[in-house]
Amino acid sequence: MTDRRLFLSLLATTGFLAASPVRAAGLTGGTGDLGLVVERATGSLLVVDRSERAAVRRIEGLGDLSHASLTYSPDERYAYVFGRDGGLTKVDIVNCAIAKRVIQAGNAIGGAISDDGRLVAVSNYEPGGIRVFDAESLEPVADIPSGAKTIGLADLPGRRFIWSQWETGDAWIADFSGKTLSVSRLGEVGRNPFDGVVTEDGQIYLVGLFGEKGVTAIDLWEQNPRPVRFLKDYGKLSDDQPVFKMPHLQGWAFTGGQFVLPAVGRHELLWVERTSLEQTGRTPTHGQPVFIIAQPASPYVWVNFALPDNDTVQIVDSRNHKVVRTLKPGPAVLHMEFAPRGAEVWMSVRDADRVAIYDTRSFEKLGEIEARSPSGIFFTSRAHRIGL
Amino acid sequence: MTDRRLFLSLLATTGFLAASPVRAAGLTGGTGDLGLVVERATGSLLVVDRSERAAVRRIEGLGDLSHASLTYSPDERYAYVFGRDGGLTKVDIVNCAIAKRVIQAGNAIGGAISDDGRLVAVSNYEPGGIRVFDAESLEPVADIPSGAKTIGLADLPGRRFIWSQWETGDAWIADFSGKTLSVSRLGEVGRNPFDGVVTEDGQIYLVGLFGEKGVTAIDLWEQNPRPVRFLKDYGKLSDDQPVFKMPHLQGWAFTGGQFVLPAVGRHELLWVERTSLEQTGRTPTHGQPVFIIAQPASPYVWVNFALPDNDTVQIVDSRNHKVVRTLKPGPAVLHMEFAPRGAEVWMSVRDADRVAIYDTRSFEKLGEIEARSPSGIFFTSRAHRIGL
Repeated sequence: MTDRRLFLSLLATTGFLAASPVRAAGLTGGTGDLGLVVERATGSLLVVDRSERAAVRRIEGLGDLSHASLTYSPDERYAYVFGRDGGLTKVDIVNCAIAKRVIQAGNAIGGAISDDGRLVAVSNYEPGGIRVFDAESLEPVADIPSGAKTIGLADLPGRRFIWSQWETGDAWIADFSGKTLSVSRLGEVGRNPFDGVVTEDGQIYLVGLFGEKGVTAIDLWEQNPRPVRFLKDYGKLSDDQPVFKMPHLQGWAFTGGQFVLPAVGRHELLWVERTSLEQTGRTPTHGQPVFIIAQPASPYVWVNFALPDNDTVQIVDSRNHKVVRTLKPGPAVLHMEFAPRGAEVWMSVRDADRVAIYDTRSFEKLGEIEARSPSGIFFTSRAHRIGL
Repeated sequence: MTDRRLFLSLLATTGFLAASPVRAAGLTGGTGDLGLVVERATGSLLVVDRSERAAVRRIEGLGDLSHASLTYSPDERYAYVFGRDGGLTKVDIVNCAIAKRVIQAGNAIGGAISDDGRLVAVSNYEPGGIRVFDAESLEPVADIPSGAKTIGLADLPGRRFIWSQWETGDAWIADFSGKTLSVSRLGEVGRNPFDGVVTEDGQIYLVGLFGEKGVTAIDLWEQNPRPVRFLKDYGKLSDDQPVFKMPHLQGWAFTGGQFVLPAVGRHELLWVERTSLEQTGRTPTHGQPVFIIAQPASPYVWVNFALPDNDTVQIVDSRNHKVVRTLKPGPAVLHMEFAPRGAEVWMSVRDADRVAIYDTRSFEKLGEIEARSPSGIFFTSRAHRIGL
């Protein structure tokens, strides 16, 4: 940490953040406490240091970062940034620079990295399908056209990727572990799946539906995984009332043997017991939930909300489904990221142009970092989790 | 990864592993895929690179490393090594060198690092008690004498540590989150606790007993955590037959809502349902289990065995409690460490002087690394887990 501190004081004296040069001396030390904050409006990324609770560099030139997500290489040196403009950008965190950038499609929605860190897969709306690239060179490795928009792409152990398809309503797995690529269809998940997510232990793939009611679960540990429908009233408010804004499934939390979902269009969380897939509770909330995120090593989930309630965050106890605390971090809380051992949470407060850092036990504000319209926050410890 | 590869070829041409110079050029790149292998007989650590499946440097001069364990700083740059000789050594992985070393007690049994990475706690047999050090300087911060040998020391969220005490048969928490240190007694856990371990989600502290039958669980999420005894026949084989070798609780696995424990003195695993604390199954095994370790993102646990069966590893399915595979990695398999996303497992095969790497799906051997009588393997991704 000493070296990083020296480096930081050097940066402070040279006013790097204002000048934002494209290249400078690389970061030294470990990479386990670094992270990237997406600055959506300016197409830039802010490199942050968790230990110092500070920004250390800005990386610019990433194109359209609206709804951008990213994954990390297993060594935490590189981030793969999936932009809405079809751009796939490999960012070198140590040297705080763009290592490579390709425009791989017309409109991409997300991506994933294989468990061995050798393959990066991208999910495309235009022209649809999945494209897979060599993580080192970004050269194409495989093109899996589907004739459909692909959503809910995630990595699975054993050089595999899973995804669902909007127009065809099914789920697929591509397996890169053998000499030849094997692609298999898991079956129908329902009409117009809009997102999919894998539980942290890699067992369950959950798919949210736009075209009909219900949620679909697939047990990936089974010999022949097959879709099972549950929560059959979930989704549409009524048959003739379409849902215009569906929540992202990356905002569904898994905690204490339960799934926690936002009630579509309502100010409510729904609790579903994982083993029975039965709904076991509801929690009235301050607004319409967007992200529900489990605080590591705790019974709590933290929830942010859609407009006009997006200045608020609530903390809910998964044991009794009660709200235990309401915070007002500021205008437009877009995302929350926990330190991997749960001690603190970082929140993007977009319209205040800052990231706010809170202690998860005392709820005291520990620090703030200036950022330009920050949205997603991604710590490098994500490199070690599956299904992201 | 490219930089690391260049560095590796440089090392190969200069034959560094044989020469083992104390200092050399530092490692560049990310630290997320590094690890340390304890070479017990020679008091040295081998720095390994998961991505390359290779050793990259050897660090010597760590004193008595029998039963040594270690934890990582949140940035993954430093390892804190707890030696049986009371030595606390801070190892700089990036520069492959010892940063600091103090002899803090006569006989230490393990340690932990606080969730903010600022405090390192060590559990001592001689003179007993807990000593806490500044992670940066290794200067003493707190001395908590107990008049008893302390065991089962682990970090909890919020700058807290938990441990149990051999002679007094109780469990304690020290809380460093406030301005002044607060130490509190959780209550009696039973006669002569020999080890304690925290579940990966930070909820349950399990304590194994030497002086009487049973296992004790403490729910750390409760307002007033209190010890609960379960598995009341566990431990001693009969009242007049003492147990000479107790398994380490670090070898108890948590998977699919179950605890998996070695049956003391028998060739068997025991399965306990986590919510009810009732025993739900037994699995006959090849030998007497030592470490039972859950393979990430899978339903499987891997088990190694005590002499004379320590050439064997078995893989058991947590859903039906059946052995699905038996491997013979070689003489004296002492430890197993999984890649954090579960794709491969590294095993110390002590008497073959090598670390063997297996694919967890195909069970194919992926590589081998020469090492001097290797025992514990610790990947840097441990920096992001609580309770270690």
